[in-house]
Amino acid sequence: MIEWLLLTLVSMSTQIPIPTDSHTPPPNIIFIVSDDAGYSDFGFQGSDDVETPNLDALCASGVRFEQAYVTASVCSPSRAGLITGRYQQRIGYEHNIPVGGPHGLPGDTITIADRLQQAKYTTSAIGKWHLGYKPEMRPLEQGFDRFHGLLAGSRHYKPYDNDTKRGNYRVRVDDEVIADEPATFAWFTDYLGEVASEQIRELAPSGPYFMYLCFTAPHTPMQASPEDLAAVGGVPSKRKTYRAMQRALDRAIGEVVSAVDASGEADNTIIWFVNDNGGATNNGSDNGLLRGMKGSKFEGGVRVPMLLRWPGVTQPGQFYLPAVSTLDMAATVLAATNANVSDIDGVDLRPFLVGEDRSTPHEFLYWRRGPVASVLQNGRWKLIRVEDDQYMLFDIRDDVNERIDLAPLYAARVARMQKALEAWESQMQPPGSASGERWRSNQIKKHQADVDSRAKERALP
Amino acid sequence: MIEWLLLTLVSMSTQIPIPTDSHTPPPNIIFIVSDDAGYSDFGFQGSDDVETPNLDALCASGVRFEQAYVTASVCSPSRAGLITGRYQQRIGYEHNIPVGGPHGLPGDTITIADRLQQAKYTTSAIGKWHLGYKPEMRPLEQGFDRFHGLLAGSRHYKPYDNDTKRGNYRVRVDDEVIADEPATFAWFTDYLGEVASEQIRELAPSGPYFMYLCFTAPHTPMQASPEDLAAVGGVPSKRKTYRAMQRALDRAIGEVVSAVDASGEADNTIIWFVNDNGGATNNGSDNGLLRGMKGSKFEGGVRVPMLLRWPGVTQPGQFYLPAVSTLDMAATVLAATNANVSDIDGVDLRPFLVGEDRSTPHEFLYWRRGPVASVLQNGRWKLIRVEDDQYMLFDIRDDVNERIDLAPLYAARVARMQKALEAWESQMQPPGSASGERWRSNQIKKHQADVDSRAKERALP
Repeated sequence: MIEWLLLTLVSMSTQIPIPTDSHTPPPNIIFIVSDDAGYSDFGFQGSDDVETPNLDALCASGVRFEQAYVTASVCSPSRAGLITGRYQQRIGYEHNIPVGGPHGLPGDTITIADRLQQAKYTTSAIGKWHLGYKPEMRPLEQGFDRFHGLLAGSRHYKPYDNDTKRGNYRVRVDDEVIADEPATFAWFTDYLGEVASEQIRELAPSGPYFMYLCFTAPHTPMQASPEDLAAVGGVPSKRKTYRAMQRALDRAIGEVVSAVDASGEADNTIIWFVNDNGGATNNGSDNGLLRGMKGSKFEGGVRVPMLLRWPGVTQPGQFYLPAVSTLDMAATVLAATNANVSDIDGVDLRPFLVGEDRSTPHEFLYWRRGPVASVLQNGRWKLIRVEDDQYMLFDIRDDVNERIDLAPLYAARVARMQKALEAWESQMQPPGSASGERWRSNQIKKHQADVDSRAKERALP
Repeated sequence: MIEWLLLTLVSMSTQIPIPTDSHTPPPNIIFIVSDDAGYSDFGFQGSDDVETPNLDALCASGVRFEQAYVTASVCSPSRAGLITGRYQQRIGYEHNIPVGGPHGLPGDTITIADRLQQAKYTTSAIGKWHLGYKPEMRPLEQGFDRFHGLLAGSRHYKPYDNDTKRGNYRVRVDDEVIADEPATFAWFTDYLGEVASEQIRELAPSGPYFMYLCFTAPHTPMQASPEDLAAVGGVPSKRKTYRAMQRALDRAIGEVVSAVDASGEADNTIIWFVNDNGGATNNGSDNGLLRGMKGSKFEGGVRVPMLLRWPGVTQPGQFYLPAVSTLDMAATVLAATNANVSDIDGVDLRPFLVGEDRSTPHEFLYWRRGPVASVLQNGRWKLIRVEDDQYMLFDIRDDVNERIDLAPLYAARVARMQKALEAWESQMQPPGSASGERWRSNQIKKHQADVDSRAKERALP
C-alpha cells in the first residue's frame, strides 16, 4: 500500500494530473459558435465600442486564446473542420455551399457528435447548421440525437410569417419545420439561447451531453430589436445595428452560461466559445488591426476570438498564447472522454493548458481554399501561395499585420515550408464544389487587391 | 504515515512542485548579457544571415521568451535595473553615464550580488561593468567577491598595448589593471568565455556561485578576427564584421555552457541569457521588423532576445509568450534561494514557467528616460508619453510594429493608463544625470523623427 502510494507520488510529481479519467464522470460539452463577428468586436478582445459583459465574464473565468485559428475563412468549410476535428479538405470540403444544393458532409462522415454518441452522450445541435441539405447530411444523420435550428447559413432574426415558404431558413425541431414561428419566438438570437438553456436544464441531471450551439448573429441580415438599438445608442448606421446584434448575442450566451451554473454541473461542463471566421465585409464588423476580413488568407480571415471555461483544466484569468486550431476542440474534448482520436488532426490541448507540456501544440497549420493555400510554422512563419503568383512569407510574430513580404530574404525557409504544404496537400482530396474556372479566376483577381481591414482604412497613415 | 502521504498526494495534485527548497542545494546562477545585439540577430530569433549554433542549442534545451523587455533602451540604466531587480529610476538611475564621471550605482545600493553573498554564494562579475567608476560603485563594493573585466561600457577587442593608458577600458582583476594584455589574451570576446569557464570549473565543486557575465560584443568598435571574418564570408561591410562578432560571441557562450555541462552541475545551474537593449544604429545590427532601435521607446528599443535553461523549471523546446522583464531575473533566482524579495520589482517567474500560474506575470511594465515615458498593460496596450506632445497608444498584440496610434479612439483607456504611469512615477526619483536642458530638447526633437528599424528601410513599401 505504501509502496503504491509512493509510486503514485513520484509519478504525479512529474506531471499535472488532468481531470476526467475513468473515475470522474465524463464532462458535459458545449460548443458555442458565433457567425462573422469581427476579431476585435468583443469587450474581452479590447473593443472600444462593442460591449459583451457576459462573454467578458466567461473569459475571466477561463482561458482566452490569443492566436486561435479556424480552418477556413468562410462559414461552411470552417464548420466542417470544427465538427469533424479533421481538415475538411480530407473529404473535399473546401468551399462554401449554395443553399439547397447537393454539397455538404457526406453521409459516412464521422463527426464529433458520432463519436460522443458512441460514448453515450446525448448530442444536440442548435441553431445554424450549414453543413448540407440532403437528408444524409442533416444533423440527425450526422451524430446528433436532436436538432433545433435551420439548415441554411443565416436567416431573418424576426419570425417568418406562417405563409412564407422558406424551408431551409425555417426553424426545425429534429427534421420538422415548426408550424408557427410568430407564436413560438420573438427574436431568433434570444430564442436560441432559450432553447439551449432549456435543454441544459433537462439534460444536466441525466448524464453527459454535447451541445453544438451555433448562433447566426452577427451574420447578415442586419436586424436588431428596438430595445437593443436603443441600448447601444448612437446615430443609425450599419455599425450601430451590428453592435445591437452583438448585444443580443452576448445576452443569449449569458443565459446559456447561467443555465449551466444553475444546473449544478458547472464544475464538470466545458464551455468553448469561438467565432467561425474573420469579420465579414458586409455586416459592419471590425477586425481591428489585422489585415484582411472573412474570405481572406491574411490573419483577419482566419484568426478568431476563442474562449474556454473548463474547471480543473483552465484557470480564471488564464491566457494561452501559442497557436491553436478549431481542430483542437474535437481532439481535446474527445480525449477527455477517452475516445479514439488517432484520426483527428487536432491536438489534445489539456497538457498544454495545464502547463504539463510547455512546447507548442502545432508545428504546422494549413489552409487551402481553391487557388489560395497557406501554411503556418510554429505560429510564426506564414507562407502563402496564390496560383500564378509569387510565394509570400510573413513573420506573424514580429509583423502580425503581414505587411512585409520576407520571401525574397528567406529562400531556404520558403522552400522548406512549400514542401510541408505540398506534403499536406498530397493527403487531401481535390475541392468538391465551387471550383469552376470563373470562381477560380475571380479568387485570383481578388488576391490582387485583397480586402484590408476597416481599421486600416480608418487609421493607417 | 499513510495519512501524511495521502495529504501530500492531495496537495501535490493541485500544484506543480518547484524544485529548490530547503532540501535541494541552492542552484548556481549564471547571467549572460550581450551588448547592442539586434532583436533578430540570432539563429533562434529567425535570422537569415547570422548563425549562432551554440545559443540555438541553449534555446532548444530551455525556454525562449517571446516578449522579454529590458528596463531601459540604453546600456547603463538597463543594467542597473537588471542587477538590482528594481526599477533603476527608484535610485534616479535613468540615463547612460559618461566614462569616468561621477554617476553610477550609489554605494548603498543592494544588488542581486549583495543578496546572494548573504546567502553564501560566491559572486563573480566578468566583463563589462558600466555601472559607475567611483570606488564605491565598483563590483567589489557592490556585492561581488570577484571582478574580471572593465569598468567602461566597451573597449577594443584586441589587447591594448602595454604603454596605452586607458584605465577604465583596461582589463582589471578585482580592482587591479592587469599589466600585460598582449601576453594575457588574443581576443577579448574569447577571453571572457575562457575566464568564465575557468571560474566555473573552479567554483562548481565548492558550492553555489553567481556569475554575472557581460560580453561587450557586438557593441562598437566594429572589430572581428580574420578567422571569424573568413568564416562568415561575404564582401567587406559593417554587417559582415557584425556577423563575425556575433560568431565570436556565440562561440564564447558555447564554451561557457560546455564548462557548466562538464562541471557535473548542469542540472542545478541556471543559465539566463539576455541582450541589454535594442540593436544599435551604429554597429550594423538588425532589429528585424520591430520599430525603433537602441534608445527608442518603440519595441525595437526595449524588446530583447532572452533564453533560460533551468532543468526542473524549464522544458526543452519551451516557449514563454507573456511579457516578462529583466527585473524578473533577480526576483526569480532570489526566490529560488529563499531570499527576501519583498522590495524587488520583478516577479518570480517559476510558477509561470512550470504552468502552475497560467495568468500573466505583469499587469503593468514601465519605462522612463527623460522626457519619454511609457507603460505597457497586460503585454498588449502601450501608452507613450513624450513631453510637449500628444499621448500615443499602441496595441502591441495586433500591431506589434506600432504603426497605428489608437489614442484618439480609446480615450478612457489612455486616461486609465496615464494614471497608472503617474502613480508609478510618484514612487521614482528624479533623473540623476544627463538631464540638462539641451539633452532634453534633443530627445524631444529626436522623437519627431524616431529611429526606425533597418528592416523597415529595406523592405517597407
